[in-house]
Amino acid sequence: MSPTKSYCIEDLAVGMESSLSKTVSDADIVAFAEVSGDRNPVHLDADYAATTMFKERIAHGMLSAAYISAVFGMQMPGPGAIYMSQTLAFKAPVKIGDTVVTTVKVTEIIAEKKRAKFECVCAVNGKPVLTGEAMLMVPSRAA
Amino acid sequence: MSPTKSYCIEDLAVGMESSLSKTVSDADIVAFAEVSGDRNPVHLDADYAATTMFKERIAHGMLSAAYISAVFGMQMPGPGAIYMSQTLAFKAPVKIGDTVVTTVKVTEIIAEKKRAKFECVCAVNGKPVLTGEAMLMVPSRAA
Repeated sequence: MSPTKSYCIEDLAVGMESSLSKTVSDADIVAFAEVSGDRNPVHLDADYAATTMFKERIAHGMLSAAYISAVFGMQMPGPGAIYMSQTLAFKAPVKIGDTVVTTVKVTEIIAEKKRAKFECVCAVNGKPVLTGEAMLMVPSRAA
Repeated sequence: MSPTKSYCIEDLAVGMESSLSKTVSDADIVAFAEVSGDRNPVHLDADYAATTMFKERIAHGMLSAAYISAVFGMQMPGPGAIYMSQTLAFKAPVKIGDTVVTTVKVTEIIAEKKRAKFECVCAVNGKPVLTGEAMLMVPSRAA
C-alpha cells in the first residue's frame, strides 16, 4: 500500500477532504505501546483498566493522532509535504474494536508561503474522539 | 518496565520535570509505519528520501509525540492521569540513530479543576525537534 499521488499547493482548495478508516485491534495497542514505550496499564492491563472511568482498555490517544499523520503522508497532500504543526484535543476514548474514521479538510491556503491549514477529526460511530488543526508546507508545482 | 508510581495533583508543582531518552532505530520507524498506516516513503524508502531536503529517511513526527505520551503515562503524572490536549510544533527531523530526549515540565497547576499544564520538548543533541504544550487531568488525593 504505497501512496499513489501527491497534491501540490496549487491542487488544494478550501473544503477538499480526505479520510481513512482503521479498526483498532488489541495488537495495534500492544504494538503502539512497544514502539512508544507508553505501557500505561490503562492501555495494556484489562484488570487495571476495569478500575478506571474507562472500564476497559483504551487505545493511546497518540494512535489516533498517528492516523492523522497517515492521511497527510499517504493521501492528502501525500509525500513531499512537510508537517509543521498539529493541535490535538482528546475528546473520548477509543476502545478495542472501534473503527476510527480520520478526516482532514483544507481550511486555509497560504499560497505565498506554500502552506495549507487542515481541520482534523478522528471519529468513532460519528462521534469525535480527537479533533485538531494542522499546518503543512506543501510543494509548489512551480518549484 | 511498568510505571512505578503516579503523581496526584497535590504532588505536582510548577517547575517539576521528567525526561526519557530513546534512540530511534530503523525497526522503530518500520513499526510506527505499520501501526499507524503512515508508509510515506520519506520514512521507509532510502532512495526516495535521498531526493528530499532531508537527504535520508526520517522518523515520523508522531513517533516523537508518542514519546511525550510515554513520559506522561509512565513517569509524570503516571497512570490515572487523563490526556486532554497537546500542541505539537515539528522543528527538525529525527533520523535513524538519533537519541531523542523527551522532557515534560509543569508550567501551571489549576488545582480546582485538577488540571496541570506541561511544556514538552523532544530534543536531539540538545536541539529541539518537537515542542508543545499539554493539558492533563490529574487525580486528586482527596478523591
